[in-house]
Amino acid sequence: MLVYGRNVALEILKKPKNVRKVLLQDGFDDKNILGLLESCQIPVFIKSKKEIDDLAGGVHQGIILYVRDYQYYSLSDIVQNGASFVVILDHLEDPHNFGAIIRTCEAAGVDGIIIPKDRQVQVNATVMKTSVGTLDVMKIVQVSNLASTIDFLKKNDFWIVGTALEDSVDYRRIDYSGKIALVIGNEGHGISNLIRKKCDFMAKIPMYGTTNSLNASVAGGIMIYEVIRNRK
Amino acid sequence: MLVYGRNVALEILKKPKNVRKVLLQDGFDDKNILGLLESCQIPVFIKSKKEIDDLAGGVHQGIILYVRDYQYYSLSDIVQNGASFVVILDHLEDPHNFGAIIRTCEAAGVDGIIIPKDRQVQVNATVMKTSVGTLDVMKIVQVSNLASTIDFLKKNDFWIVGTALEDSVDYRRIDYSGKIALVIGNEGHGISNLIRKKCDFMAKIPMYGTTNSLNASVAGGIMIYEVIRNRK
Repeated sequence: MLVYGRNVALEILKKPKNVRKVLLQDGFDDKNILGLLESCQIPVFIKSKKEIDDLAGGVHQGIILYVRDYQYYSLSDIVQNGASFVVILDHLEDPHNFGAIIRTCEAAGVDGIIIPKDRQVQVNATVMKTSVGTLDVMKIVQVSNLASTIDFLKKNDFWIVGTALEDSVDYRRIDYSGKIALVIGNEGHGISNLIRKKCDFMAKIPMYGTTNSLNASVAGGIMIYEVIRNRK
Repeated sequence: MLVYGRNVALEILKKPKNVRKVLLQDGFDDKNILGLLESCQIPVFIKSKKEIDDLAGGVHQGIILYVRDYQYYSLSDIVQNGASFVVILDHLEDPHNFGAIIRTCEAAGVDGIIIPKDRQVQVNATVMKTSVGTLDVMKIVQVSNLASTIDFLKKNDFWIVGTALEDSVDYRRIDYSGKIALVIGNEGHGISNLIRKKCDFMAKIPMYGTTNSLNASVAGGIMIYEVIRNRK
């Protein structure tokens, strides 16, 4: 995966183990990045502006990193290793949300994150940046079919919890003591109907203003910390 | 304020009351946006690509909106109107975080948000977009001096609650039943020392992984919903 731009480069180079090589534009002078590059053993190549322009698809600020692609886990890896709390993303679109959710899951000790292969933001450079180093330790599973994945989780004693405003109960009233798979819905449409039908509980985060939804990563954070509230 | 780009234009035109005029590049053909423009009474002007390029400072996708600047409130507006829960942002940098926090505050019924005038992201186009329409109803106060603002709040019976990992107590153990001013710290440095010293309580959100912090808007969401947990 090619990653470019100074901010994301700076984040990634703090934990550089997956960086294979770095291209710098002739004259590149960011002292923080040059300092980090000096302290690690990554091959660095100086290139012309034109060469960097041609490789990068956007604003590169004179630096391109070649980073090893994220290696997804398998569902059985997670379930057979005694997972008791997983988070399912039902077609999230925004990489900032995905990154923030990875970070929250890692902080809260969630055992794995499950994402669909299609119509879902995958692990890209922005996700890498916004998850600030937690990608290295978070297990993410890519599945072809979310509905059959949920059936598999149910057979393995997971309770499926979604969130919605209607036909749902206050999120503080649900018993989260068993194995939990928490579904976080798409930013615009929420949880899809098919997945919603498979949920054992629909939780509602109460709202008192004019808006009827929270940012997906904020709602996810509130729900994740509610699940672990009485577990840890 | 000039706002450009199709996504943010689409969001803003759903609640167009603060839009003064719209410039479209000759040949602009986004049907959703054109549909919204037809249904509201905003003056629209067609301009050449060069004219739009010269006005916009970035990727405009053929559309520029002139939006009325956000009208900040005064601190006394909020305090004298019986506020019992305010959120203070201690030099936030990321407009996505600011926007998501505005949205959470509005949903949770927070009475006002206080931001410093300097070294803090102000209400700009990205904030407008990520707060998805809640800016219209959320009261935001800009202050020159956060420390003296906190002194003023204390004189008005507010308890000041910050978050930190060290020298802090579990966020679930604090009594939030009085008037609360919750401080959310900067993305990189957290809450500044001066402000920290003025806090009556420092709360800790427990973490069980390798990361030692959450995204600012996620941590803010968890804390805000903890404060209102037993109040509403």
